[in-house]
Amino acid sequence: MSTEQQAVLKTNEAFYRAFSNNDIASMEELWSTQVDIAVIHPGWAPLRGRESVMSSWNQIMTGATSSPITCVNAKANILGDVALVICTEILEEIELIATNTFVLESGEWKIIHHQAGPLPQSNNIHEGDILH
Amino acid sequence: MSTEQQAVLKTNEAFYRAFSNNDIASMEELWSTQVDIAVIHPGWAPLRGRESVMSSWNQIMTGATSSPITCVNAKANILGDVALVICTEILEEIELIATNTFVLESGEWKIIHHQAGPLPQSNNIHEGDILH
Repeated sequence: MSTEQQAVLKTNEAFYRAFSNNDIASMEELWSTQVDIAVIHPGWAPLRGRESVMSSWNQIMTGATSSPITCVNAKANILGDVALVICTEILEEIELIATNTFVLESGEWKIIHHQAGPLPQSNNIHEGDILH
Repeated sequence: MSTEQQAVLKTNEAFYRAFSNNDIASMEELWSTQVDIAVIHPGWAPLRGRESVMSSWNQIMTGATSSPITCVNAKANILGDVALVICTEILEEIELIATNTFVLESGEWKIIHHQAGPLPQSNNIHEGDILH
């Protein structure tokens, strides 16, 4: 694994640690302030722009006593100053699959996009099912 | 809208045209051959690598008489040689939200990642619901 892959996976872990600890200050720090950001929480319409994205994290994390979420099987794909991490999120007994996108800003990886959706064991929609 | 945004949205449209027409040759052409690619179809585990990704498109598109899928509200975010497009997919009466990621290769935008998941009207999982 390259140094950059290690660095981006460390930021990815910090993201899940902030999420799990309802640490809004760290979450604010982890997301880019320099480019357009967006988030697609499972079952939400996409949110674009820092204000909407941060408001959603506040809504999800404020008042929650604990948000046990862990991230496993994280794999990083580095594309110059942009990186994609695909990982599995474990929330209590539910698994989601997520893609987190990062940009390198002043030597630090910052999150610019997060999309999470259900894995096969969940009750969900399947492009293949629909199309056959 | 910038020239690059227009160019990447044109490739994004070509992706949905290939999908809708079950045009496997165009789908092969649209995805990068130079970097690691991945796909997260809704309800599938993530697939990594060109062989797995293309095999999944073959599986979804082969034998289907028609795959009416349209893409609306596409917005492109250009990050140097990488671009993210968030859009709504309309499959018959179902809506999904997708993020498509592209890289610029020899002046052409090529797809490297696609993730689609259900929108709120679908029966799905919600991080906010789980955590509150």
